[in-house]
Amino acid sequence: MLRCTVAFVLVSGAICLAQDAPPPPPGQPAPSNAPNSQYPRINPDSSVTFRIRADDAKSVRITTLGPYDLVKGTDGFWSVTTKPLAPGFYYYAVNVDGFATTDPGSQAFFGYNRYGSAVEVPGSDSDFFAPKDVPHGTVRQAWYFSKSTGADGAWRRVFVYTPPGYDENRNTRYPVLYLQHGAGENETSWTNQGHANFIMDNAIAAGKVKPMIIVNENGLPPPAPPGGRGAPAPGARGRGAMIGNRFAEFDAVVSKDLIPFIDKTFRTIPRREQRALAGLSMGGAQTMRIGVNHPELFASLGLFSPAVGNLDPATDYDGKLADAAAINKGLKLLWIGIGREDSLFPGVKTSHENLEKAGIKHVWAETDGAHVWTVWRKYLVEFGAQLFR
Amino acid sequence: MLRCTVAFVLVSGAICLAQDAPPPPPGQPAPSNAPNSQYPRINPDSSVTFRIRADDAKSVRITTLGPYDLVKGTDGFWSVTTKPLAPGFYYYAVNVDGFATTDPGSQAFFGYNRYGSAVEVPGSDSDFFAPKDVPHGTVRQAWYFSKSTGADGAWRRVFVYTPPGYDENRNTRYPVLYLQHGAGENETSWTNQGHANFIMDNAIAAGKVKPMIIVNENGLPPPAPPGGRGAPAPGARGRGAMIGNRFAEFDAVVSKDLIPFIDKTFRTIPRREQRALAGLSMGGAQTMRIGVNHPELFASLGLFSPAVGNLDPATDYDGKLADAAAINKGLKLLWIGIGREDSLFPGVKTSHENLEKAGIKHVWAETDGAHVWTVWRKYLVEFGAQLFR
Repeated sequence: MLRCTVAFVLVSGAICLAQDAPPPPPGQPAPSNAPNSQYPRINPDSSVTFRIRADDAKSVRITTLGPYDLVKGTDGFWSVTTKPLAPGFYYYAVNVDGFATTDPGSQAFFGYNRYGSAVEVPGSDSDFFAPKDVPHGTVRQAWYFSKSTGADGAWRRVFVYTPPGYDENRNTRYPVLYLQHGAGENETSWTNQGHANFIMDNAIAAGKVKPMIIVNENGLPPPAPPGGRGAPAPGARGRGAMIGNRFAEFDAVVSKDLIPFIDKTFRTIPRREQRALAGLSMGGAQTMRIGVNHPELFASLGLFSPAVGNLDPATDYDGKLADAAAINKGLKLLWIGIGREDSLFPGVKTSHENLEKAGIKHVWAETDGAHVWTVWRKYLVEFGAQLFR
Repeated sequence: MLRCTVAFVLVSGAICLAQDAPPPPPGQPAPSNAPNSQYPRINPDSSVTFRIRADDAKSVRITTLGPYDLVKGTDGFWSVTTKPLAPGFYYYAVNVDGFATTDPGSQAFFGYNRYGSAVEVPGSDSDFFAPKDVPHGTVRQAWYFSKSTGADGAWRRVFVYTPPGYDENRNTRYPVLYLQHGAGENETSWTNQGHANFIMDNAIAAGKVKPMIIVNENGLPPPAPPGGRGAPAPGARGRGAMIGNRFAEFDAVVSKDLIPFIDKTFRTIPRREQRALAGLSMGGAQTMRIGVNHPELFASLGLFSPAVGNLDPATDYDGKLADAAAINKGLKLLWIGIGREDSLFPGVKTSHENLEKAGIKHVWAETDGAHVWTVWRKYLVEFGAQLFR
């Protein structure tokens, strides 16, 4: 038992703020850990050690990552060390005797449609998304009323990155990138999982990207209970609602409610040439659809590992891509990136080839990597560097 | 097994976005639940039903709240219903076969020095902290460099509420309330647990409080690993560091680094009469200490259920409270509130009586309630209404 050396006494007991530390194990706590948590721990060979207390458990298992079965040690803790992992961000769950839950050692990340655990394995190129000694922007939670949500409208939360200096330089106006997450994630994910704010701070400081505002919305909010302003109507989002309908709802939210709110509230440059839309996976599919539907709003589109397979420009999107000359005239930038280890790769590559055959200009970025945040963080810089030029 | 009716296919499997719902149970999901989670569930009598899947567990227990032992039902889920609970915000943990962790049904709240679960039991007066149909302010995450943190300084994160209209009214300046959390919580807690932003939105809309900026810092960051800019020196915060030293460090952070950053970055009214400091529990103790140390910075102090017991104005704080006339001249408002069911009540009441005997003017609010967020949310309005008049 470790001795508590710094405590703060509360009504319901004492909060231990520091303990006698056990002998330091090798490696370091993962940067994705909750404050104070020594595990999960990144070993010098980039393997990860998980360690959990579950005195009466029959089995403890790491899932999503792995699976890895933990073994109970003489100190009463269950632990396991993974094989060496490539640098990256790995979602995982802990399963104790059939209870699938989170690791109290991890921060809570919204993914797979729940708050879950993840471990960041740092690598030699993790520096670009780390909080560094450069000017920092801010990330706002803002609320706006969306008439297009459900039957009666609803207040929605949006995350807004403003670049370094935004609050001090009170007359400067900025371009805006609307940047969407993947299925099962939400408006918090580009900040919490992606570190988009630190990526931008670093890239702006290095002169790689222009200062811009970035907006993250919830592209596919989960069904809300019926009734009351603020809750969507049952028919609009209830069980059985189809993805397609919900994509159409999100199109309306973005085009009718979100953009007017952002342009009214922030010092934007409210022109299509200074407004971009991008997203990863499901967000890439939404980007293509909303972008094609609204050439009057967006001149630049970014598709990060998009769920856009085997695209047929002649017939998809109600034929709105059929006139290549018109599309090329309207779009300043259509950027498509995907990793070769991504299971969506073959379908997306076919989409790229079909766009090429149809004469629709685009940037094709065929990269290393799978369907993971490690890839999308890099795409933000690569795509961002070509924006608003 | 419920059938998945809306799914989105990802590389590693499918994300189920909607399920065939089971027959609707009575009550409603707690407002503190993760999106989509039906449990914990608030019953019509204000009891709470917890429900958890743990197929192979021997025992499942709710702790912190309760304890309550869950019972395995014929559907394979473990469940329990509490006695009717008074409206309020209750932290809880789930313990499965000795594994103390979170409930995946709950949002993640930082309390007890970890990300944990909580259930909000709504009541007839929950309206004042709900997101309502009024103009909304925003909550920023901002980063600033604190020279006073550790040996080499560190980047720190701060939460900043700006009132409705702040971004649009580009020349208006505002007073600032620095508002601190309790032990084991952090800079996220007044937003996530307290809903301070919605409280202020509603109170501003009702004309009860003046529009103001609110700043939440981390009053007692957990010890960080030694080494590197951004990590405090081992001696400054390592094991064995005393609370007193860390209070002194926080005093320096606030007075030397945070206030200059806020006044430079935001449209504040940078005068002591337009700057207040308040905090709950441990944050109340910090408020009294920092406030007494820095009369040049703060003209108003708020102590919410403060960990300030049996205060002796003649000798405590190095005698800085000894000259009542000088204190009364300097402090526009010293507000002390505590609930009669709070275990800190006797000590704080003695502090109040000692201040009274010493002739130090203050507002004494002896209220219903214990050492809980339900009380502190109300204090924010009660104290806030008297600020900056």
